[in-house]
Amino acid sequence: HTLWPDSCRYVSKAAAKTQMEFEYDGPSMKTEVPGPRSKELTKQLGEMQNVGAINFFCNYEESRGNYLVDVDGNRMLDYRHLLHPYWLSAFVNRPALGIMPPENFPEKLSESLLSVAPSGMSRVQTMACGSCSNENAYKAMFIWYRNKERGHNIPSDEDMSSCMINQSPGCPDLSILSFMGGFHGRTMGCLATTHSKAIHKLDVPSFDWPIAPFPKLKYPLEEFKRENAQEEARCLEEVEDLIVQWRQKGRPVAGIVIEPIQAEGGDNHATPDFFKKLRNIARKHGSAFHVDEVQTGGGATGKFWAHEHWGMDDPADIVSFSKKMLTGGFYHKDELQAYRIFNTWMGDPSKNLFLAEVLNVIRRENLLEEVTRSGKTLLQGLYQLQDQYPNMLSSARGQGTFCAIDIRDDATRNSIILKARDKGVLLGGCGERSIRFRPALVFKEYHVHMFLNVFSDVLAEHN
Amino acid sequence: HTLWPDSCRYVSKAAAKTQMEFEYDGPSMKTEVPGPRSKELTKQLGEMQNVGAINFFCNYEESRGNYLVDVDGNRMLDYRHLLHPYWLSAFVNRPALGIMPPENFPEKLSESLLSVAPSGMSRVQTMACGSCSNENAYKAMFIWYRNKERGHNIPSDEDMSSCMINQSPGCPDLSILSFMGGFHGRTMGCLATTHSKAIHKLDVPSFDWPIAPFPKLKYPLEEFKRENAQEEARCLEEVEDLIVQWRQKGRPVAGIVIEPIQAEGGDNHATPDFFKKLRNIARKHGSAFHVDEVQTGGGATGKFWAHEHWGMDDPADIVSFSKKMLTGGFYHKDELQAYRIFNTWMGDPSKNLFLAEVLNVIRRENLLEEVTRSGKTLLQGLYQLQDQYPNMLSSARGQGTFCAIDIRDDATRNSIILKARDKGVLLGGCGERSIRFRPALVFKEYHVHMFLNVFSDVLAEHN
Repeated sequence: HTLWPDSCRYVSKAAAKTQMEFEYDGPSMKTEVPGPRSKELTKQLGEMQNVGAINFFCNYEESRGNYLVDVDGNRMLDYRHLLHPYWLSAFVNRPALGIMPPENFPEKLSESLLSVAPSGMSRVQTMACGSCSNENAYKAMFIWYRNKERGHNIPSDEDMSSCMINQSPGCPDLSILSFMGGFHGRTMGCLATTHSKAIHKLDVPSFDWPIAPFPKLKYPLEEFKRENAQEEARCLEEVEDLIVQWRQKGRPVAGIVIEPIQAEGGDNHATPDFFKKLRNIARKHGSAFHVDEVQTGGGATGKFWAHEHWGMDDPADIVSFSKKMLTGGFYHKDELQAYRIFNTWMGDPSKNLFLAEVLNVIRRENLLEEVTRSGKTLLQGLYQLQDQYPNMLSSARGQGTFCAIDIRDDATRNSIILKARDKGVLLGGCGERSIRFRPALVFKEYHVHMFLNVFSDVLAEHN
Repeated sequence: HTLWPDSCRYVSKAAAKTQMEFEYDGPSMKTEVPGPRSKELTKQLGEMQNVGAINFFCNYEESRGNYLVDVDGNRMLDYRHLLHPYWLSAFVNRPALGIMPPENFPEKLSESLLSVAPSGMSRVQTMACGSCSNENAYKAMFIWYRNKERGHNIPSDEDMSSCMINQSPGCPDLSILSFMGGFHGRTMGCLATTHSKAIHKLDVPSFDWPIAPFPKLKYPLEEFKRENAQEEARCLEEVEDLIVQWRQKGRPVAGIVIEPIQAEGGDNHATPDFFKKLRNIARKHGSAFHVDEVQTGGGATGKFWAHEHWGMDDPADIVSFSKKMLTGGFYHKDELQAYRIFNTWMGDPSKNLFLAEVLNVIRRENLLEEVTRSGKTLLQGLYQLQDQYPNMLSSARGQGTFCAIDIRDDATRNSIILKARDKGVLLGGCGERSIRFRPALVFKEYHVHMFLNVFSDVLAEHN
């Protein structure tokens, strides 16, 4: 925890003085820029991210007033302070990660995000939020797809001129295939793939992209294997039909995006077999496969990534994340890398420091095992209550503590949520009539029992 | 500065213990939820933002383990921890502002963002980044426009069902008019209005939205008044033509978006007269007027908002910001408010605390006057160098320290930037062959002289 005392001391000392006391008296150059240390760090970071836009690595502790100091000790008068009106904010706050990352950035990135990279992925791009993560993941898929179509990555003059006025071929008529009930964010690209609630989409212009049905399975999954397999086959067939139709329409499917469990849409599960076959369909038709783990990533399903439950070596081309990961971003395969994925902040490095801490605690306290244990107890409790109140409850389901249960109707659901809150238990809804359970990773079995008692009381009052 | 020692002490103390030491032994309810204090704070915040999604205000200092404590002292077992895998991250880090803001949020919002609200605007929506700010501002304009078309804000059944599959009327064919050379971000909605560099847009599907020419003026503006007025009139005429054309196409212009100075596009200025007339055109055709101050806001032009140079009482319907403001977001008129503008984080409240500090320093040290003074010296220096090197330099221009100058060609520009860096001065380019100056607000006149000496040496070497 040495991080904290240090940065705090710096801040409070700094805050007590005015900026002028800190000011250097002029530039001072020791090496060419980027110097050897910056070059070494750029090489390190290059193993994890695209580094095409990086000028040099910055020593934010030594930088002050109007001067930036780089990791080779060069002190430069800064005439392009794009971000900070005032040193306080610059040095304790948001460096422009894409251009001048701090010295410890590669190290922190490997301790945090890369230490939990999904199978087959060694590269990660951080972003400020979940929507930006998905927007940029889509852009990476479009760019990858167009390069594949061209056979190289050099755009034509027509590409370059037509894109400036939003026309094809520069802005191509490509599409992302998404699923009814999915939620991938609220910015306009993401929103075109979001289909959980009308209210998210209403009045916002959209794209003509294909939307496939997500399997509507019966729970518990193991009790309805045959019917569920039929339903999944129906949806997969529809996916292939849509890919063919949209190719014929001149809007080829550059990528498929899906959640391992549709969260906002009502905690809809599908089987590993479904996801394996979907992955194969993407491969067969040359579409990228994007698994959106913004809701499911970070351990709540009992594995760090929900897609690990599928048991595949090569589960995806892109995996996006946010929320529990504290920073947004996406992992991607080497070939989906694009220098052109860029913005000013590219996330916030302080979040990586937090995340490294969080991951340490998850490992030290075996929280994923804890989640699996608590989740099992929770789900068993829900099964019991569902047997006890068959008119009120149905379809208990879950992975780890990422659980949900359906309530008779929307009104009953809302009344149950309010009654539980009056008894000191905070629950949330999802889908049309589900209650979802999203406890923290430190939720222990005795918390589960405490909850089940309250929930049971509330249900008894409703019966 | 009491903020810092306190929050630091909290963090380091917390970090030294395990989470279990903090855990409460069960829920404890004191009032209904939301209780009187939450209701009072919701009312206060309602003056500044839409509060439709807020459940209660949270006391993050008292919340620990699996328990959330609200500002009325109710302690609730939290079964919907959407954001935090572990208390450390939750309490020192990112509350879900849209649902459970911290107690001091209304106060901090009025001390920070609302204390510098543009003329005619008393409401603000925070967002995590510049792109999200613009995306959500566009959505607010689309929703406002559709409500105006409907005559009320109740969607039809057809609206609700068609939007789920990305079709009109639910997802209407509305457009945003933007300007060639503009830059408004890189997510897909923003990107459809960005036209500064092809490389930003290439390979990403876009919308068929109208793009007007931005005036190409001669500098210094006061020496070419007549020609500049003609050029501005030409562009305004084109704007009206496009609005009419797109209405006829069935893609009405819901909003016009423009930067007060086109920054990425090459520091292109226009006169107050141009912006006044453009504002009137927007009003005449029923389009919202969105001023994007992501680059220009925060004081660099010598006024807090660049659009204040226009001298209008009612300059805009929406003003978006980010960068120097430390948080993203947008100010808007009452009628452009929408409950449906929402995401998980809605920005990061720690940024408001920083911003309040920054604003105090700006006021205490009269930094806007400083900027005006330094900017005048800088621009005069650039005029002199331009007279001295007429083959190399032209079109020196600026407001405050937000200045730029054109270089003979792209190669010379890049060589000048590198040579200046070797002498310890960091410069940046914009547009096709401009160098832009973006010093911090604390850039004093002696920094300007230091810079002009280095710049003069570099130019002498190039001549």
